[in-house]
Amino acid sequence: MLQAESPFNPVALIAKKRDGGRHTPAELHQLIERFMAGDVADYQLSAWLMAAVLQGLNRAETVALTEAMLASGDVLKLASVSAPKVDKHSTGGVGDKISLCLAPAVAACGVAVPMMSGRGLGHTGGTLDKLEAIPGYRVALDAREFERVVQRCGVSMIGQSDRLAPADRRIYALRDVTATVESIPLIVASILSKKLAEGIDALVLDVKVGRGAFMRDLPSARRLARALVNVGGQAGKRVVALLTDMSAPIGRSIGNALETKEALQVLHGQGPDDTRELTLLLGSEMLRIAGAARTASAGRARVARALDSGAAFKHFARMVEAHGGDVRCIHDPARLPQSRHRVSVTSARSGNVQRCDALELGLVATLLGAGRTRADQKVDPAAGIELAVKPGERVERGQPLAWLHVDEPALAERFVQRVRNAFSLGSRAGRQRPLLLGRVG
Amino acid sequence: MLQAESPFNPVALIAKKRDGGRHTPAELHQLIERFMAGDVADYQLSAWLMAAVLQGLNRAETVALTEAMLASGDVLKLASVSAPKVDKHSTGGVGDKISLCLAPAVAACGVAVPMMSGRGLGHTGGTLDKLEAIPGYRVALDAREFERVVQRCGVSMIGQSDRLAPADRRIYALRDVTATVESIPLIVASILSKKLAEGIDALVLDVKVGRGAFMRDLPSARRLARALVNVGGQAGKRVVALLTDMSAPIGRSIGNALETKEALQVLHGQGPDDTRELTLLLGSEMLRIAGAARTASAGRARVARALDSGAAFKHFARMVEAHGGDVRCIHDPARLPQSRHRVSVTSARSGNVQRCDALELGLVATLLGAGRTRADQKVDPAAGIELAVKPGERVERGQPLAWLHVDEPALAERFVQRVRNAFSLGSRAGRQRPLLLGRVG
Repeated sequence: MLQAESPFNPVALIAKKRDGGRHTPAELHQLIERFMAGDVADYQLSAWLMAAVLQGLNRAETVALTEAMLASGDVLKLASVSAPKVDKHSTGGVGDKISLCLAPAVAACGVAVPMMSGRGLGHTGGTLDKLEAIPGYRVALDAREFERVVQRCGVSMIGQSDRLAPADRRIYALRDVTATVESIPLIVASILSKKLAEGIDALVLDVKVGRGAFMRDLPSARRLARALVNVGGQAGKRVVALLTDMSAPIGRSIGNALETKEALQVLHGQGPDDTRELTLLLGSEMLRIAGAARTASAGRARVARALDSGAAFKHFARMVEAHGGDVRCIHDPARLPQSRHRVSVTSARSGNVQRCDALELGLVATLLGAGRTRADQKVDPAAGIELAVKPGERVERGQPLAWLHVDEPALAERFVQRVRNAFSLGSRAGRQRPLLLGRVG
Repeated sequence: MLQAESPFNPVALIAKKRDGGRHTPAELHQLIERFMAGDVADYQLSAWLMAAVLQGLNRAETVALTEAMLASGDVLKLASVSAPKVDKHSTGGVGDKISLCLAPAVAACGVAVPMMSGRGLGHTGGTLDKLEAIPGYRVALDAREFERVVQRCGVSMIGQSDRLAPADRRIYALRDVTATVESIPLIVASILSKKLAEGIDALVLDVKVGRGAFMRDLPSARRLARALVNVGGQAGKRVVALLTDMSAPIGRSIGNALETKEALQVLHGQGPDDTRELTLLLGSEMLRIAGAARTASAGRARVARALDSGAAFKHFARMVEAHGGDVRCIHDPARLPQSRHRVSVTSARSGNVQRCDALELGLVATLLGAGRTRADQKVDPAAGIELAVKPGERVERGQPLAWLHVDEPALAERFVQRVRNAFSLGSRAGRQRPLLLGRVG
């Protein structure tokens, strides 16, 4: 436990950051500790957060804040798991079902994946909602059950435990309503405090860039990636970040059951090219960082083999069973929740798809019921959007651009034009953007 | 009532100021209105306040914020008072008993003074505490009683009503604990929203400068004075600000009953030179701004006459009686609360007083019981410090620099050395600093 040199005075601490001062690790530990104890009020922390957004936190402060938030709760050991333990975290995208294919594939290669994920909010989806599209799947395991599943299946995917980094949950709730989300140091501390509590040895980050992502441009995404890798490293973990394109949705589905189905295709060695490719890119990094592959290309080959051989699927099925999920849905995806209607969005003209707006399609999918605009909303597991074409492909007039999955056709009709407008057609041959935009770490 | 163009979203409003944007008047009115209605949480307002401290508020924003805070409560009319109505506000000092001499003197010159004051906090004193040194004096009158006393006595001195600018009270309480006090626009809106609610025609400000004041240097005091005069003008009031020295305490007493005694001397045409001089300076401005004197020197002569003739004292006595105060104490100040002990602080050497530290003496007086370090503390009306010498005067070794008024000599002993050290002695002839350092408006 760090000791403060002088009696704790939250107002002096806020004033220090307001005036551009640098906090000692002891000050940040005290701030978080006293906040969690109720001695620092919400209105004081929010004033400090705004000062931190505007005056910044340097590397050492970000490390100390991360460690203080980590220290606010339990830190898992997973002592019974002898395999190297690696997790992946994505900064959030549209159609991002990669965790569902990736975690079992990496587990099939002998690397343990103890994964804690979140729910969707706004236009971005959440892994927990996709898992819950499988009837019976329990996302809330306690630490002991979690460890047992990781030990037995090599992988467990659960929700954030209330006992890990509870300071992050309280601080994030405050940031969300005080316009203090947009700060790289605060984002870094939030992500890493949760991930470091999972008891992992290393972490691969998927920092998404583009209109569907939190980071809209490459330079700011790179700044975030660098900060995550450096702070993670100073906190004693191996961390690598890939910068990947998020201008178009990943794969061909947006919506929980639809994405779970697509993930199952990839787990069978099939599925859309980009979904598989992103799985291979991130999987090879996870193997390499875990010491399970010497080079990225060796790792890539092993993950591909896990997908193509059915080993990845087997790990997924075993995990679903361990979580109480209905395994029949895994073997027969037609049993997954299905909407009553599938409404076509046809193209008004012929052309090559130039762009397919991830943000806009993510927002529409949310409004169709696949996501949330408020944290307390329920999602419709069957609702969503299936893409008929993607950038680089051609569509003829009257042919479908996408299908909307809904229970009420009237709901779909309200969004047909918005979905149509999300596709830009042109005469020049459309090109798929490269998925991998950079690598840090 | 100003109308907003779009639905109210406090987070968007905080983000706008965070990013250095300029608020519309409608936005600021909504922010304050919704805060008072409970729709904007304390933690949201404190984040906005910190953004405002760091990104600033321009003149138009400061005017709108002042008006929004003013609109949060009643605005007095004082329709039955036909005389011009002028108030004085000081930014707070040590030994500042000027209101007690000034308000009755100006009233004696035919200008009504409806004055609302505050209590002491930290090293600065408060007029209410000095008035309450008079047994029975009621500082809490309702609007009707207040108007009646102003009408009958030409002057009434009360505490801030809960019904005037209640937003200021709630916002100030929040600023106090979130390190968002130090901002000229926020200070201006706080001072003026309260003063404009008093139903006055004009306002004279005493902006104090120096170690005993909130503004430590002349440039920042001048910035505050300019902002007060300009924003007050845009809000439709005549406002003048004097910049006055606050490096040494005003007069020869610090502490409530001690200061009331000194004010009574000045009201009898006597008392320390600087206390009288400041009364004349501020009084002449009040008469001029009220249209009751053509020039400052004509105003000065009239105020001097009011003091010397006993007219000012008569107005004070009449007001004290109207407030239920024990008038015998006014006629015989020995009846005011007195401490049991008067402990000398003697000089360790002979010399001319170069400086006499207002901040340090204000802090010691507070610790002797004359003030508060927390808003909920009670004060000891008799406690305080009497100065034997001031800058420009000579003291011989072993002769007193000051006397501490306490009930317990042991308490005084703890501060003797600090008080001694607050006086700087030298061989060159000490000089009193000029009281008036500037004028704005």
